[in-house]
Amino acid sequence: MNARTTELLERRYRLIGKRAPLFYDEPLHVVRGEGVWLYDADDRQYLDVYNNVPHVGHCHPHVVAALTRQASMLNVHTRYLNENILEYAARLISKFDDSLSMAMFACTGSEANEIALRMARHCTGGAGIIVTDFAYHGNTTAVAELGSAFMPEARYAKNVKIFPIPDSYRALDGLSGDALGEAYADRVAQAIAEFENEGVKLAGLLICPEFANEGLLNVPAGFLNKAVAHVRRAGGLYIADEIQGGFGRTGRHWWGHQWDGAIPDIVTLGKPMGNGHPISGVVARADLIDAFGEYGMYFNTFGGNPVSCAVGMAVLDVIEGEKLLENAIAVGGYVADGLRRLQTKYDLIGDVRAKGLFFAVELVADRVSKEPAGGQAGRLVNAMRQKGVLISRIGRGDNILKMRPPMPFSKDHAHLLLSALDECFAEL
Amino acid sequence: MNARTTELLERRYRLIGKRAPLFYDEPLHVVRGEGVWLYDADDRQYLDVYNNVPHVGHCHPHVVAALTRQASMLNVHTRYLNENILEYAARLISKFDDSLSMAMFACTGSEANEIALRMARHCTGGAGIIVTDFAYHGNTTAVAELGSAFMPEARYAKNVKIFPIPDSYRALDGLSGDALGEAYADRVAQAIAEFENEGVKLAGLLICPEFANEGLLNVPAGFLNKAVAHVRRAGGLYIADEIQGGFGRTGRHWWGHQWDGAIPDIVTLGKPMGNGHPISGVVARADLIDAFGEYGMYFNTFGGNPVSCAVGMAVLDVIEGEKLLENAIAVGGYVADGLRRLQTKYDLIGDVRAKGLFFAVELVADRVSKEPAGGQAGRLVNAMRQKGVLISRIGRGDNILKMRPPMPFSKDHAHLLLSALDECFAEL
Repeated sequence: MNARTTELLERRYRLIGKRAPLFYDEPLHVVRGEGVWLYDADDRQYLDVYNNVPHVGHCHPHVVAALTRQASMLNVHTRYLNENILEYAARLISKFDDSLSMAMFACTGSEANEIALRMARHCTGGAGIIVTDFAYHGNTTAVAELGSAFMPEARYAKNVKIFPIPDSYRALDGLSGDALGEAYADRVAQAIAEFENEGVKLAGLLICPEFANEGLLNVPAGFLNKAVAHVRRAGGLYIADEIQGGFGRTGRHWWGHQWDGAIPDIVTLGKPMGNGHPISGVVARADLIDAFGEYGMYFNTFGGNPVSCAVGMAVLDVIEGEKLLENAIAVGGYVADGLRRLQTKYDLIGDVRAKGLFFAVELVADRVSKEPAGGQAGRLVNAMRQKGVLISRIGRGDNILKMRPPMPFSKDHAHLLLSALDECFAEL
Repeated sequence: MNARTTELLERRYRLIGKRAPLFYDEPLHVVRGEGVWLYDADDRQYLDVYNNVPHVGHCHPHVVAALTRQASMLNVHTRYLNENILEYAARLISKFDDSLSMAMFACTGSEANEIALRMARHCTGGAGIIVTDFAYHGNTTAVAELGSAFMPEARYAKNVKIFPIPDSYRALDGLSGDALGEAYADRVAQAIAEFENEGVKLAGLLICPEFANEGLLNVPAGFLNKAVAHVRRAGGLYIADEIQGGFGRTGRHWWGHQWDGAIPDIVTLGKPMGNGHPISGVVARADLIDAFGEYGMYFNTFGGNPVSCAVGMAVLDVIEGEKLLENAIAVGGYVADGLRRLQTKYDLIGDVRAKGLFFAVELVADRVSKEPAGGQAGRLVNAMRQKGVLISRIGRGDNILKMRPPMPFSKDHAHLLLSALDECFAEL
């Protein structure tokens, strides 16, 4: 670690604390970003295969221009009339099923999930929420209670039940096919039954349709439709947390829930929505938003302001103008093929999962026992950083490589990624 | 209401719902802002005497330039090293007592109060929070429970106790002077005792030191020091919510809590912090932030990013460069004198309260009974809007005119405000 990094770390520890999360054994001091590239203080470039927030590329000029133009013109709250929020809401809603016809805006994913929680609990009259046993949905008190993955509040949560992550790779009871989907859906039904036994009325099921934090799971066939049917029968709502995987990342659709038949009652949006500008939102059934509005005043000082909405629209412009969904399918397929070739070469790679430009590579000490190779995953992520390629890892065993590059990721970039992975696996 | 406004309203109701809050009987369609002025779609100008978020003036060029420069250069989360967050944290912390030496960043006031709540509850091992009986601290589930003013969750809150707003105008039991401060502090002690009886350990007292939502109260002498002493004796923390009144609005100090002797353990910041850009933060004792960090990972995707910090620093530059605290004292005093002259002229004005560029004018049907004149206040706010001056009203009786203009408010602007008020009171 060089002297400058050491000095920055010392200041950081003193000013914002030692526990503020930081990536890599040798933390990266970034000063500039452009497209899929980040640059450190010595002007060394890093291929960004981690950040989904700069969705259309770091510092995209069209987004920066929209930000500047609107910030120079007007930035106020939504208790005045302004066209931006209406144009943006209309464009956003047009990407969803007709039943999801109204929007609310906030600033962060945690805030969007807070709205969804308060809305679901009010509209159903229930309190019970079902999440996976390795979930993360945000950092507020109520949302932290849903964070079975690593939020301390989740330990004491009374109105939260979990079901095992619907994973085809580490399949429940060694099942497969329809039986596996059925088995996981049964676990959701079981959580509902437990709530009933305790006299807790169900409010809903809250999941990321890609199960991204859980490891970008290959969801067993039929699982989601069956689970949602159980939830609706019990009077609950289906809330899709699209904060991580939305806005076309998976290529085939704008939203992760569109891969399955089940249409959510409430969808929450965030991270890539403003390409880094703090915007989040909820798109939901109009009757739910109206009923929540009757319940009590919801106002968010910065949510839906003209600048946020101008930025949000610029992001939609670029996604459409640069055909980034199509790119996610083409380049995503190329990367997925390359990762599967690496799997044939390195026994450490137990499973490769891909959806558009979202990839998970699960490292295992042994392909039969599937013992998570968390240590190797950590060394690999750090070796990649030293080689100039930024990725991360997730999963209960910290053994799943997580890759979600900015969307203008080309085959040339994919080639760089795959070569670096090949070298790092070889050197591990 | 003209055809354009009607059309905008119709689209608004359809896209974001009828209950999204909106100001004025005839809603204002704003398209442009500059300094203390807002402009509608017909280019009519309105003197902004309401908005404290565009703190250094609408679309201030120095702030927009900093936003553009950094957004063109780099915008990433804080898990990489970057100098902006360290420079901003250091500048911010330097405005506080030495005991408040560490910062955390988020995006909204609700998020800042969420951090404060989670931190206080973890660090004390208690759950009980004491707030006033007319409080608003934000819109998340846990923070809504503190919102005795009008958040529905507050009705069922188990770990929240209230005390009567410490108001010299509508004084408790007709007391005055030290006895009044003592009496209100006793009510805080009573809330602590109730928690003890119920076996709920105290986490802290959470107040806005200006009691801004309560009506910018003239706080009885000695109240706060005595109340904080009670809280500390019971093992609780003093949390100052400076989201509305911070960053020098009151002129004499940077923060509202500095008017009293008591130094908070945790301070929450927001609204004016980024002049409209979504930034919020917590400045607290280092031992509390460290202990909260040990407890569990807190990460905020957009919080403390290089763009937010560049904007935050630009706001500090303007506050200091344009001597806005000094201006708040000079112009604030001029406005306060003018309001008191109006009070001698109109019996409707029961009380005038002022702190720097923050004003509350309490309208009463009768100066002896002090019956709130909410209807007249509503008519006055709408008449002012028709005259081109934007103000609002607050208070349990909706009878308190609330005025918090952008800080570069001059004596000329003050003259316009006072003349418009004079005319509107005369015509009421």
